[in-house]
Formats: sequence, structure tokens, C-alpha cells
Amino acid sequence: MDLIKKIAELNHYKSDLSGKDFLLTWEKSDDDLKVVLQVASILKEMRKENISPRIFDSGLAISNFRDKSTRTRFSFASAANLLGLAVQELDEEKSQISHGETVRETANMISFLSDFIGIRDDMFLGEGNKYMRQVGEALDEGFTKGVLPVRPGIVNLQCDMDHPTQSMADLLHLANEYGSLDALRGKKIVMSWAYSPSYGKPLSVPQGIIALMTRFGMNVELAYPEGYDLIPEIVEIARKNATQSGGSFKVSHSMTDAMRDADIVYPKSWAPFHIMQQRTQLLMNGDKNGLKELEQVCLANNAKYKDWEYNEQVRKVTRNSDALYMHCLPADISGESCIQGEVSKETFERYRIKTYQEAGFKPYIIAALMLTNRFQNPADILMKLIERNTPRVIK
Amino acid sequence: MDLIKKIAELNHYKSDLSGKDFLLTWEKSDDDLKVVLQVASILKEMRKENISPRIFDSGLAISNFRDKSTRTRFSFASAANLLGLAVQELDEEKSQISHGETVRETANMISFLSDFIGIRDDMFLGEGNKYMRQVGEALDEGFTKGVLPVRPGIVNLQCDMDHPTQSMADLLHLANEYGSLDALRGKKIVMSWAYSPSYGKPLSVPQGIIALMTRFGMNVELAYPEGYDLIPEIVEIARKNATQSGGSFKVSHSMTDAMRDADIVYPKSWAPFHIMQQRTQLLMNGDKNGLKELEQVCLANNAKYKDWEYNEQVRKVTRNSDALYMHCLPADISGESCIQGEVSKETFERYRIKTYQEAGFKPYIIAALMLTNRFQNPADILMKLIERNTPRVIK
Amino acid sequence: MDLIKKIAELNHYKSDLSGKDFLLTWEKSDDDLKVVLQVASILKEMRKENISPRIFDSGLAISNFRDKSTRTRFSFASAANLLGLAVQELDEEKSQISHGETVRETANMISFLSDFIGIRDDMFLGEGNKYMRQVGEALDEGFTKGVLPVRPGIVNLQCDMDHPTQSMADLLHLANEYGSLDALRGKKIVMSWAYSPSYGKPLSVPQGIIALMTRFGMNVELAYPEGYDLIPEIVEIARKNATQSGGSFKVSHSMTDAMRDADIVYPKSWAPFHIMQQRTQLLMNGDKNGLKELEQVCLANNAKYKDWEYNEQVRKVTRNSDALYMHCLPADISGESCIQGEVSKETFERYRIKTYQEAGFKPYIIAALMLTNRFQNPADILMKLIERNTPRVIK
Repeated sequence: MDLIKKIAELNHYKSDLSGKDFLLTWEKSDDDLKVVLQVASILKEMRKENISPRIFDSGLAISNFRDKSTRTRFSFASAANLLGLAVQELDEEKSQISHGETVRETANMISFLSDFIGIRDDMFLGEGNKYMRQVGEALDEGFTKGVLPVRPGIVNLQCDMDHPTQSMADLLHLANEYGSLDALRGKKIVMSWAYSPSYGKPLSVPQGIIALMTRFGMNVELAYPEGYDLIPEIVEIARKNATQSGGSFKVSHSMTDAMRDADIVYPKSWAPFHIMQQRTQLLMNGDKNGLKELEQVCLANNAKYKDWEYNEQVRKVTRNSDALYMHCLPADISGESCIQGEVSKETFERYRIKTYQEAGFKPYIIAALMLTNRFQNPADILMKLIERNTPRVIK
Repeated sequence: MDLIKKIAELNHYKSDLSGKDFLLTWEKSDDDLKVVLQVASILKEMRKENISPRIFDSGLAISNFRDKSTRTRFSFASAANLLGLAVQELDEEKSQISHGETVRETANMISFLSDFIGIRDDMFLGEGNKYMRQVGEALDEGFTKGVLPVRPGIVNLQCDMDHPTQSMADLLHLANEYGSLDALRGKKIVMSWAYSPSYGKPLSVPQGIIALMTRFGMNVELAYPEGYDLIPEIVEIARKNATQSGGSFKVSHSMTDAMRDADIVYPKSWAPFHIMQQRTQLLMNGDKNGLKELEQVCLANNAKYKDWEYNEQVRKVTRNSDALYMHCLPADISGESCIQGEVSKETFERYRIKTYQEAGFKPYIIAALMLTNRFQNPADILMKLIERNTPRVIK
Repeated sequence: MDLIKKIAELNHYKSDLSGKDFLLTWEKSDDDLKVVLQVASILKEMRKENISPRIFDSGLAISNFRDKSTRTRFSFASAANLLGLAVQELDEEKSQISHGETVRETANMISFLSDFIGIRDDMFLGEGNKYMRQVGEALDEGFTKGVLPVRPGIVNLQCDMDHPTQSMADLLHLANEYGSLDALRGKKIVMSWAYSPSYGKPLSVPQGIIALMTRFGMNVELAYPEGYDLIPEIVEIARKNATQSGGSFKVSHSMTDAMRDADIVYPKSWAPFHIMQQRTQLLMNGDKNGLKELEQVCLANNAKYKDWEYNEQVRKVTRNSDALYMHCLPADISGESCIQGEVSKETFERYRIKTYQEAGFKPYIIAALMLTNRFQNPADILMKLIERNTPRVIK
């Protein structure tokens, strides 16, 4: 069976993700990433073959969404359920957290019988990832000091720096489209800013994409209007990754020029780094007027770049006029979800189903992160599951 | 064992509900309906006998309540849980749906590992059922194009046209009260409007009742004050059903006259069809003043019919002064939940426990809809479950 | 194995908790309490040894939180999940309960396939416990009259009188700290009022503590500023318990004096009994101005007792300057969660991890309440689980 071959391949990698939180892709080795992709791929196939990968007889997966979410919320719920865990949401409004309770206390209080905590915290630059680490340290302490029977793993469901479950799902999608990770070598992928009528979109997706896609020999180009910079340290990481992997990394400032001969395009809006910094400051000061003013300034600035729309004209300059279009969804689609946005209706429609398939990898990426966090030897466990052969749906 | 006999009887019916959404009872054959009732009945007995009918080792059942719900919410959760699925609620406020995301996209995004989607959308005439079909088409596309590993079934948890899980539970209750479906032949059931101090109650229950109860040879009478019409096309369906089934269908305009010699009575308030049409228009236009005015007009109109209360006096004209009282609950009970309402306190109390029993069939109806949606041969699966004999609670 | 010995010990007790709600510790015999503690302890150890105590293949545990909760919410979810139940929340705002539906109706509507209902209702003096009993009577009726296949057990997750899952967890923590329940005999425990900048904290924790801790031969002292009385009937119960158990019970009015030579201290704020009575009245009358005034009066009164802070100075008068500090959490920590509060930062920090461990017993106490509510002979069931030896996490 193909599944068994895929499982055996896991042993070729030198990786141990067990007991370690998955917070930023650039903290993980290439082999770590390959193991996650392979495990995700195996779990997807097991599901198709009606083999249950349930590894937990009971246990909780806590979700803590500090920002809205549909895709990631359902992906997390699906992953937890697939492995046998029940999701319990930490709704900070229904809890006593507002009473000044410390992060380290809450982290322990929700974890007595929990196996994972998934966190989305992408609103404040410099805060989200920090918060996840605070939670992690609290869990370390609780586990070390006998408060917690196991150390729950943390899954980064989007922070201010990275959106690893998104970028890993995107990468698995690419590997599937091109046949393998190796086949991506030499491909040109353009992560481009695009116009949106909304404001304050997180930087984590473009940052996550450039930092991850530069690791597999691709030629990555980051395009945006002057001023729409990302966090400089992360751009630097992308640059280094490209050098190490034998690919390339380039920053430019014209969508159409960047898109020329692109194999893959990822046009998506984001807010400029320095605006997000100001916004964080204003939010923390509770300066509502300041925030309104900043929004107006920012929207007015965005409006100068309405021509940064991915459409039929731009598509024509890409490789064979048919670059693979990617998006984390929902996209701002001109004439559908807004008057003018990131992508024209016609162009989006050409690749719509592909974007759905792209999104479909996320539940398996999250499940793979959970499985590899829990077991030192994922291949062993997967083989046991294959041998156990419990059907997901009774036959 | 009685259970085995009941399961064997399933093979007498010519029905295949597998892979088809259950949106309106009048789209289903008599045998389809009989199979659902029989499976529901079997599942209820299995539960009593502590035999677990768990058919899923994992999987999600998505609930999308666009209106308030207690009974149906818990019934859906119970049914999903009984079969082994975890409920994940789609809370449109916590999601990014407000950002202009399309229905077809959301439908796919929540379905990567989902087996069922239960939807309540009963607020807008002409909208709820349409919405469910839109979701269904999106799921068809997603499944056909390889986005989804299975095509999740849709369960109509109340729309603008029908409330099939309610009417089917009501029918199973009647079959239990009278011993069988056949025993209902020739019985007189009155679906009557009743006064309520609230406004804008959906038409789906009375419509569902007249369209379903006319299919089994009952004499169905629909009574309401002039002007409180239901959707004409559905009244027409009831009329045709009655002719075909050898029963009768009649519309009249006096509660007391209608109730005379009734075996079964279902007094319940609803808003007039033409008011609901205006309301939908005003809601879509966001016309708040118009809505307030309409509410005043409607309440004033309702108030003319305060004497449409089911009470001891009216009960006395029914068969043996003891017609079986039905209600989908909660009822507006005079002197208990409101000053004056659909039913007097004394009369409701006589049949209160019966209405609870009536409601108790709903979880099993929903579970039966799920099971028959998933398996072409429910009898086979049920026999396997009996043979497996997993106890629901350890013994 | 140690587990088997512990299970065997259960047979020494004369107790039958099956089919009975656990609403107040003082309604239960000493043996009842000992069985709950022992079962909780066994379940905790089973979890550590990776033995799944799943007794339900399916079933719902309903939670009804009428007040905010983190710890208890997650404890209830953890306990339900550990035993195999899915949690379904009754969110009264998303339901039709506001429409005047009766408690007895709702209680039945949510219970068709439910095994437990956990209720927190601690806002109104004289109401919370009464509400739980109303629900219980409705469930009795539903079960007796064939509406419900099983009679769901009610778990008191905090009412106006008692907080039994908290006090039992606290007691199990003490038994663990001192080695056994017997070792607590003769120990001095001080339940002391402490200053808090917030107002209207429930009386249920101090009441639960004095009523429970007096049953095991401890010397219990209740200290509070004049006027901060608890419900007199419950104080009377504590007094009687102390006499019967061979311990002592004393009320006093100086924190420092009370703490002298204390083995265990529990400094925690609460509102005065007569204020809570007034508050209930004002809340029921919807008197918002009255409530604001009462809050001001109460806060001003609290402010007179800012010196009721547990800190290094007070700690020094306790036994060996090292009394075990307890709190139900979250504590109002001076200089951390508020300017001045119940405990100083330094002192809290000394015992912080201990308070986390204390909280960690609650999920197991709740699971033990569920298990003993369902089975007449818990030892039998636990032995079966040990023999079955299903791993919680695949090995």
C-alpha cells in the first residue's frame, strides 16, 4: 500500500518535534517541516481510505481565538476531532480573565486535562507571538512542578509574525500541484501586496509565505508599493533562507513587473509595518480618536494603489498566462465581495476551486502538528494506526 | 428480539435516501418517510436497551442557527453525539462571513472533515430554503471537484417553508399514541391558528403539519381567522396529498367549529403570509421604521382574535372531550408565560407531559435522517450495530 | 498495584450516591464524601497511568452557567470528556428561554439524551440552590412519566449556599498535603474574610469551606470584620459538624489574631449576607439606581478593612510561619491584579503553585460525582476499567 511506503519515508528525516511548540516555521529544521508535511499528507489519505487516526480516547484541545476566524477555527476543530480530542473554547468574555487574572494562571487552569492549546492572536504587532511564549512558559512551569500531568502543546493559529498552519498548508498544496517538494525548486513565486478597501490586515501571511517558500529553492519575489514594508527581521530571514536553499529572494515595487513569468502568485493585502506599529500603540493607549484618524490616513493611502489588482491583464504576463493563484481566503473580490479589491471576479473564478483545495490542507497540517508534538516517532504510531485499521465510518 | 423484527421490516420499503438532503417532506416518497420513522423508532429503542448506535469514530456535525433555538439545538447535538459526531457551531458573528464571503465558499470551508450541516433559517419568507439549496449546490461542487472527501448531508432544522424534523417527530408521536401509522387513517387532526401576544412567528410548523399529515389518510382541517393564510403553494400540496392518500383536507375560519369531534388538535400562532412577505421586504431594505409600523399593525390585528385560545370550553367539543393536544413548544400559555395566549393553563397542563414526549422524538428523527443520508441500506447497518452490541454506558 | 488497593478500600464505606444529586455537602454522609474523594483520587491516578476511565460511548453533559466561569467551566468539560460525554452549553441568550418558558419545560427539553446537568447560579441569595432543585424535580417528573430514558444527575457548580466541587477539591488537596483525611484531625484552618476592591462576591466558598472542613476533626475558625456575616443557618451547621466530628468551630473578628498558629489559611473576600439580601431584592425589582447606591455603600464599607490583607506580616504568626495558603482563584493580588487586595504579591507567590495544585483536583471531583451518581457500586466499575485497560493515549 502506498500509505505504508509514505510512512516508511518518515524515517529518512532527522527530526524531533515532540514536546516542542510550533510557533514559527523558521525555528524548525527543513526535516521538521518535511515530516509535518508528510504526516499531514498521510493523515489526509487515511481519512480518504476510511482509516481512523484516533490516538486519544479522551482529552481536550483548547482554542483561544482573540480574533475572528472561520477557516482556522474549523480546521482546528477538525484536527482535534480527527485525533479524538474535544474542543473547548476559551471565551475570554465568559471567563474571569477580565478580572486581572495572570496569563500564567489561566494557562494552567485550562490545562489540567488538556493536550493542546491553539491560539490566534494577530491583532497587535509585537504581542501575539510573545503571548504564546508566555503561555508556553506557564505550561512548562505547571508541568515541571506537578500541576499538569502532561505539557499541552501550543499550536500557533496566527500571530503577528507568522501564520504557520496557513503557510504549511500552502506549501503542501504546492507540493501536490507540482508533484513533490523537490519539483518546486526553481519555480518563481510572487507574494504581492494587493489593494483592499479594508484596513489593518495582519502581516503574518505574507511574512509566513516569504519565510517558508524561500527554504525549498524557489525564486521568491515580494512586491509591494513603497511604504508597505513587512517586519524587517523577517524579510532578512527570507533572504538568508533563499541563499541557503539555492533559491533567490527579491523585493520590488510593481505588481505587473513582479508577476512576469511567475509560476505561482499570491496577491494579498496587508497593512504597512509602521502603521501596524502605530496602531498597536494607539490600541494599547485606548486612543479611539487616534485610531480613527490612522484608519482614515491608511485607507486614503491604500486608495492610491487601487491598480494593484490581480486580474486578467496581469495574469497574461505570468508563465503561460496561467500562474497558480493562491490566497488564504476570504479574498476581496472586485465586483463580488467589494467594489474593487485584491482580485478581479473573472480571474478569481478561474482558480476558485484551487483555492478551496489549498484551504483543505489546513486541518491535516494542524493534526500533523499535534501528532508530531506528542510522539517522538510518528512513523511508529502511524503504522500502528494502519494495522489497527479502525474504520472512521462503520462499514 | 423486537428490535430485529423492526429492522427486518425496513426491507419492505422502496426507499433510498442516501446522499440526498432532507429539505422538505413533500419531496420525499411515502416509503422514504416510513423508513425515517422506523429508523428513528429503532434508534430510540436501542438507546433504551443501552446499545450504542455509534457509526462514526470521528467527524463533525456543523450547526448553523440563524435564529434562536433550544429544542432543535439540543436535538441536533444529541443526534450527532449519538452517532459519534462532534458538533461545531458556525457562529456567523465570530467568523469572517460578514466580510462579504460567499455562501459557496463558506460551505466548503466548514466541510473539509464534516459529515452533516444542520441549518435553521426561518426568518425570511422565500429565503431560508433557498439558502439551504445554495449550500447544497456548493457542497455538490466541492465534492465533485475533489475539495471535499465526502458530501456532507444537509439537515433542515427549520426554514421558511417546512420544519421537517418537527413534523416528522410529531408524526412519530402520533404513530406511537395510536399504535401505528395505519391507525391514523380516518382520524381528524386540526391545525388551528391561535392567538399570541408576539408577532412574526414562522409559518413553517403549520405548513409542515398540513403537508405531512395529509399523506396518511387523516382528515386534516386547517383553521385560521380570515387573512392568516399560509403559502398558497403549500396549501395546494396538502390538498393533493389528501386526495392521494384517501384522507381529506379542509380550510375553515372558526376554531371551535373546526375542533368539533377532532381526535388531534394543534393550536399554534403564526403570522399571516402577506405580512411575512412585507416583513421580508422591509428587513432586506433595512427599513426599521417600516418594521415597527408593521409590527404595530400586526399586533393590533392579532388582538382582534384573542378568543382563538384553546381552552376547556373548546376542548369539550373535541372527540370525547379529549383530543390529543400537540404543540412544537414553547407554547404561549395564558396566565403562565403570558397574560393571554394560545392555550389556557388548565388545558395545557392536561397534556403537558404528552407535549414533552412529542418533543422527545426529535433527536431520533434527526439521527435517522443522518443515518439514512449516509447509508444506502440502513437495515444492514442497524443489524451490524445490534450484533456489535457496544453498550452506551459500561455495564 | 496501588490502584487496586485504593479501589478495594471503597467497599469499606457505607454509601450510595447513585441517582442522587450532589447539591450541598451537608446533605451527604461522611462516607459519601469519603467515597467521592477516593474515586476522584483513583481517577487522577488512572489518568496519570494512561488508563482511560471512559464509561460512556456517547451522551451529553449540559452546562448552564448563569455567571462567569473559567476554572469550573474547564473542570466540568474535562470531567465530562474524561468519562466519554460531550458538553453542550445551554446559553440562555441563544435559546427561547427568555420567551417565558418554564424551568420544568426547559429542564426536560435539554435532557432527552443527557446524562448530567451542571449548573452555576450564584448571583441571587435564596435563588441558586432553589433553581437547581426545581430543575431536579422537573427531571424526576420527566423520568417517572417516561419522557426521559434516564434521570440526568445535577452537579452543583456553585450556588448561593455552597460550592461543593470547590470545597471537595480543597479537601482532597488537604488530604494530599497531609497524607490522609485522618491527618487533618486537630489541624487549625482559618477561613478569613479579606479585602477586595470588587463587590458582591458570593458567600458560597466560605460557607462551603466552614461546613465541610468542620466534619473531619479540624479546628475551624471563621474570621471577618463585624457585619460580614454568612448565612446564619449554614454557620449553625458548621458549629454542629464540629461538635460531632470532635473538632471545633469559632467565629472571630481579627485576621491576625485568627491566623495565629494556623496550619491552613483561606483568606478570601465576600459580601456581607445582609447586603446580598438587599442586592437580590434590588436585582429582582430591576432597581438599577438602588443597585448603584448599594455598590457605593458596600465598597465604602469594604474600604474600611483594607488591612485585612494576607501578607508576610500575617504569615509570620501562623504555624512555623508557613501555614498552607489556599484560594479558589483568581485571588485579588495586591500589586498584581489590583492595587490592594486579598493577598500580597510576595506571599501569594510563595504558595502560587500550591493553589494551582489545589485547583487541579476539581475536574476529578466532578468526574467522581458523575461516576458515583451513575453507579451504585463504583468499585465494581473502576475494577472493570482497570481490567479493560484502554489507554487514554495510544502507546
